[in-house]
Amino acid sequence: MSILVVGSVAFDTVKTPFGEVRDALGGSAAHFAVAASFFAPVRLVAVVGEDFTPAHRQPLLDRSIDLGGLTTATGRTFRWSGAYGDDLNSARTLDTQLNVFADFRPNVPEVWRDTPLLFLANIDPDLQWDVLHQVRGAKLVAADTMNYWIDGKPEALKKLLGRVDILLINDGEIRQLTGERNLVRAVSVVRRLGPPAVVVKRGEHGVLVFEGESAFALPAFPLASVIDPTGAGDAFAGGFLGYLASRGLDGERDLRTAAVVGSVMASYQVEDFSLDRLKRLTMPEIRERFSRFEDLTRFKTLS
Amino acid sequence: MSILVVGSVAFDTVKTPFGEVRDALGGSAAHFAVAASFFAPVRLVAVVGEDFTPAHRQPLLDRSIDLGGLTTATGRTFRWSGAYGDDLNSARTLDTQLNVFADFRPNVPEVWRDTPLLFLANIDPDLQWDVLHQVRGAKLVAADTMNYWIDGKPEALKKLLGRVDILLINDGEIRQLTGERNLVRAVSVVRRLGPPAVVVKRGEHGVLVFEGESAFALPAFPLASVIDPTGAGDAFAGGFLGYLASRGLDGERDLRTAAVVGSVMASYQVEDFSLDRLKRLTMPEIRERFSRFEDLTRFKTLS
Repeated sequence: MSILVVGSVAFDTVKTPFGEVRDALGGSAAHFAVAASFFAPVRLVAVVGEDFTPAHRQPLLDRSIDLGGLTTATGRTFRWSGAYGDDLNSARTLDTQLNVFADFRPNVPEVWRDTPLLFLANIDPDLQWDVLHQVRGAKLVAADTMNYWIDGKPEALKKLLGRVDILLINDGEIRQLTGERNLVRAVSVVRRLGPPAVVVKRGEHGVLVFEGESAFALPAFPLASVIDPTGAGDAFAGGFLGYLASRGLDGERDLRTAAVVGSVMASYQVEDFSLDRLKRLTMPEIRERFSRFEDLTRFKTLS
Repeated sequence: MSILVVGSVAFDTVKTPFGEVRDALGGSAAHFAVAASFFAPVRLVAVVGEDFTPAHRQPLLDRSIDLGGLTTATGRTFRWSGAYGDDLNSARTLDTQLNVFADFRPNVPEVWRDTPLLFLANIDPDLQWDVLHQVRGAKLVAADTMNYWIDGKPEALKKLLGRVDILLINDGEIRQLTGERNLVRAVSVVRRLGPPAVVVKRGEHGVLVFEGESAFALPAFPLASVIDPTGAGDAFAGGFLGYLASRGLDGERDLRTAAVVGSVMASYQVEDFSLDRLKRLTMPEIRERFSRFEDLTRFKTLS
């Protein structure tokens, strides 16, 4: 089953305590698409500038990502520059150049409008709303957002949430969105706005998944070396929704196993800069780390 | 199998966004002992002042804690006062009055010196060392510490670690002790100092347990209401070591199930001020929350 993602494709300049990259391929849609591509066919809707060369497309094409919705506009590609301190938990943005992304008006190719699974990566909630209505055939809609939109367009975001099946959001953002410090209560507030399922991403502290009466908590994989956290949330979303797509939407959707798969992808994502680790990742490695998550979390019952 | 704990018994004045208590029974040894008492006989070594009345002893006696090592010294009982802000993750200390605790020289009753399981709660590492040598018959020694001693007596603490089987420490403290930001590497550094097992307490983010080649991660229980985090770490330690004591030390020790039991106790501890929640806690409630931890963490394998 195919997934359609709309979001950003960018050139990232990132500095961490372990090195730096300049103008490396990034953006929410790119990170998501590469991670999801291990599990399902991915259709990408985004915009790049004239400086986005065939060589830049190649890593996406190597993952069989369908770039039929990647338009080239006059101007330069979106650029983001950030730095991480020792704690690696949050980036300090040094520079943002929207460039062609400033005028991005996503236009989903007609033949893609029945894609069953839609991921609205972190872009303007008005654009997310627009894409949601273009992809009329979507059976499952998931969305991400960020502090910038929570602050700047809270009403548009809340309207969107009324139409979203799964919200993926980080812990700081859900607190900001709801004004609730306690995560359990924050999730209750968000679910009253619409999404029946909420996935709270907590970075190095793992992930919480709430759906119906079910709460699932998974720690992050304890890594001795984290090189660059950029794209971890999008790689999580890619693994999470990629797994759901691979299982189809007819039976009971298994958000728990999907969250483990997402965490596997995020754990690899942070092991290197840009898409470098995921470019050389293999399915046996994914299965190996999934089984290490099983080892990490299992315990015997109380006797 | 009995546990001997040495630590503080105190009067706590605590303010949180949800209320406050004045001169409530607290201290690391008291919180530990009450939690552990659900699983094993507990012997308590500590000092109180003349203001510690029979009524103050009653909650400990109600839990069948042996107070044969609780000495009364001339003066007032140790007092701590702290306040928590909205995030509840760390207390701001408003006042500390060591009082009789300043001259505490633990003297373990002769008949207790063969207690098989010893918990050195957070006190001066020189005193921990002294108690360790008094309890000659101890088969398993666990210790806690805090930033104050890491900063003030690092050499005494490191010497102690050479004799400890299990170190319980929070995430900020293990980073401080080792100078390593990455927890996996920080644990490796600590284990080279001695303890074959290290338990990293991460508050609302759960707990990590490292022993041999095994790594275990457990999220904290997602609570919609946390009233007062004071004593959560000690309640965790009490459940953790109480469970180990209840299973005996002959077979393979199961630190994973012990960590879940510890997390159950910590999750109840924070639901009310002082010892109020644990005073009315029952074994069926402990079993019920243990099974909710099983629900919280289970997932299906990758198919």
